[in-house]
Amino acid sequence: MAQIDHTVHVALGERAYDILIGPKLIEEAGAILAEKFPGRRYGIVTDEMVAGAQLPRLTAGLDAAGLSYDTIVLPAGESTKSYGMLEKVVEGLLSAKLERGDLVIALGGGVVGDLAGFAAAVTRRGMDFVQVPTSLLAQVDSSVGGKTGINSPHGKNLVGAFHQPKLVLADLSALDTLDPRQFAAGYAEVVKYGLIDDPEFFEWLEANRVEIFSGGPARGEAIARCCAHKARVVIADEKETGVRALLNLGHTFGHALEKDTGYSSRLLHGEGVAIGMVLAHGFSNRLGLAPGQDSGRVAAHLQAAGLPTRLADIPGELGSTDELMAAIAQDKKVSRGALTFILTRGIGQAFIERQVDPQAVRAFLEEMRAK
Amino acid sequence: MAQIDHTVHVALGERAYDILIGPKLIEEAGAILAEKFPGRRYGIVTDEMVAGAQLPRLTAGLDAAGLSYDTIVLPAGESTKSYGMLEKVVEGLLSAKLERGDLVIALGGGVVGDLAGFAAAVTRRGMDFVQVPTSLLAQVDSSVGGKTGINSPHGKNLVGAFHQPKLVLADLSALDTLDPRQFAAGYAEVVKYGLIDDPEFFEWLEANRVEIFSGGPARGEAIARCCAHKARVVIADEKETGVRALLNLGHTFGHALEKDTGYSSRLLHGEGVAIGMVLAHGFSNRLGLAPGQDSGRVAAHLQAAGLPTRLADIPGELGSTDELMAAIAQDKKVSRGALTFILTRGIGQAFIERQVDPQAVRAFLEEMRAK
Ligand SMILES: NC(=O)c1ccc[n+]([C@@H]2O[C@H](COP(=O)([O-])OP(=O)(O)OC[C@H]3O[C@@H](n4cnc5c(N)ncnc54)[C@H](O)[C@@H]3O)[C@@H](O)[C@H]2O)c1
Ligand SMILES: NC(=O)c1ccc[n+]([C@@H]2O[C@H](COP(=O)([O-])OP(=O)(O)OC[C@H]3O[C@@H](n4cnc5c(N)ncnc54)[C@H](O)[C@@H]3O)[C@@H](O)[C@H]2O)c1
Repeated sequence: MAQIDHTVHVALGERAYDILIGPKLIEEAGAILAEKFPGRRYGIVTDEMVAGAQLPRLTAGLDAAGLSYDTIVLPAGESTKSYGMLEKVVEGLLSAKLERGDLVIALGGGVVGDLAGFAAAVTRRGMDFVQVPTSLLAQVDSSVGGKTGINSPHGKNLVGAFHQPKLVLADLSALDTLDPRQFAAGYAEVVKYGLIDDPEFFEWLEANRVEIFSGGPARGEAIARCCAHKARVVIADEKETGVRALLNLGHTFGHALEKDTGYSSRLLHGEGVAIGMVLAHGFSNRLGLAPGQDSGRVAAHLQAAGLPTRLADIPGELGSTDELMAAIAQDKKVSRGALTFILTRGIGQAFIERQVDPQAVRAFLEEMRAK
Repeated sequence: MAQIDHTVHVALGERAYDILIGPKLIEEAGAILAEKFPGRRYGIVTDEMVAGAQLPRLTAGLDAAGLSYDTIVLPAGESTKSYGMLEKVVEGLLSAKLERGDLVIALGGGVVGDLAGFAAAVTRRGMDFVQVPTSLLAQVDSSVGGKTGINSPHGKNLVGAFHQPKLVLADLSALDTLDPRQFAAGYAEVVKYGLIDDPEFFEWLEANRVEIFSGGPARGEAIARCCAHKARVVIADEKETGVRALLNLGHTFGHALEKDTGYSSRLLHGEGVAIGMVLAHGFSNRLGLAPGQDSGRVAAHLQAAGLPTRLADIPGELGSTDELMAAIAQDKKVSRGALTFILTRGIGQAFIERQVDPQAVRAFLEEMRAK
């Protein structure tokens, strides 16, 4: 019997599914899948790093359950979210003769989840898929909610589909093999949920950060609370026509910085989000919306978690402010020229502002670069 | 005021839309769109042939209505439904800085409609799009119902999305510049609707074929009747989990032949469907399901319309029966090894059979090759 510490239900009607959180769910996936989805075949999509660290646990369980599967292994890293890799995964699923009713398993971080989910969405016009997130970021954010996709030379995640998984299995011990820098980057998204609309959760994080990083029971609880938060938002606004945009807190700045650093190891996605959240708080303060002490508290917490919080924390030279502004304008949360940003009135009080003046953003960025 | 001869409503709830059929809808598209979708920008996707024959009519109308648009012109032909061209269209839409609320216009035959619709489905995780079908096949079939996609080396239409258009504008005079061979190929799909479940329509086609080919009022009526038929099926089964599969009458054989001839001008899609429908009738007869005289009547009608009806009508050498069988097995209407075919008990009495024995198909194909 699988040990399940937390279950979060994503109540999306026909597309409803569960997120299971537990210590050994990767080994137990075979048994769980065999029971939930009898008679299916499987296409596992993963990356080279996760294949080394976690794939044997998964295949051992699938073998024990007598399930039939093929495995597609991709290079690790953000540049895998590309047209070429999409083609590779789709063609791999077709070569494996998987049918519409079969299941794709995304075993990995957000890169694998986004790409494999998108490939499942378009193969035979839609195959089912299961998320087995192995990074903290994927467990608390990207594996839930059905946003899938790849990057374009024009910007991140500009090509994709809404395609909900049938099940999410978040295995806590998978995080044991995750690089600590990656763990910290994922933690930025954990903090995000507090900053959006849950000041009590932010406080709880301030009190439990050390235990979350060291792997005590607070880790599973934090993940469950994040999933519950995300599920609530996705249920309210599956296709991001409204409140779901709040989840982009810190992301407009963050995506521009990621683009500028070439999606390289100079800046991980979560690190970009960490800096972006601090910038969003600082910019809101500059606009007279939020108290300066909240910005400081956010920055202090992220910094204590080992995250970068200022433009100057990014190694190497940043592009020009013009380049950053162009990246911000191309981000997909743009409507008719005016910029849309997630701003805030303080910790736990984020809101969507669709009329942000690009000049004010530019001036603020110029100032931040000088720091 | 636009002249609209027929309107067909596709009642899909939130995704409902109209098909308008009239003599000059391409010129009038600008005015219609400006009224229906105020404040949008447009990305026109078309192919080189249609760009020469029809694009100026469209852009003149958009210009007159003061609409802003960019145009992406692709090579004509089936090989345009590829990964590379998908990337080209998506990147073109992004370069044109089109936003989620803007509209893609697919101006062309089924190739442009399938590709542009798929690109719209995945650009920014879903842009709206309008179909302006210019081939007979596209007007009676591919522009309606939301199936979009590209081909894989593994087979036709294996990659794609269900994405309904917001409007379909079927301009009758567009067909004046269509190659007669293409017109005949589209006519195969017209006949298909009669063969599925409407024997009276098949009889009406026997009586009106000449007028339909010469461009009399029966042409518009035939198109409207086909759209109404397709709309009915799509409403009943949008995602093809059941009855929609009936629309694949003749397509499993047809797709295998298209694949075998390399999607080249040796065999147009509709020509493959024509032969496929005759084979489906013949095979049903061989299985003792359908009377032989119906097969003969179907073949005679298609032949009178200038369509190929036998394997021997395909110029050049066909691949081996093994190759044809492999193509049939890879067609996406396969479930757990047994072959799914649309069979028939006679004209207007098609049905879905999921337990077709591959050996029976192989034997039948062997026999047909000898003819
Ligand atoms: N779909 C969404 O809603 C959503 C939300 C947030 C972020 N994202 C996307 O997620 C991506 C970032 O996700 P990520 O941070 O997980 O990146 P990632 O998938 O690249 O994983 C980070 C690195 O850790 C490795 N790794 C993952 N799990 C491991 C494990 N258990 N042991 C050892 N190594 C492991 C990976 O191989 C990779 O090298 C971005 O592309 C971002 O756009 C998507
Ligand atoms: N999505 C669906 O539900 C669906 C249904 C049936 C077929 N299809 C797809 O449709 C495609 C076939 O469509 P098609 O037969 O229209 O092919 P097509 O788009 O290639 O058009 C045929 C040729 O006619 C030209 N053409 C089109 N309109 C013209 C005009 N008015 N004047 C001059 N030239 C014109 C095109 O440039 C092309 O060379 C196939 O890929 C098939 O898979 C899709």
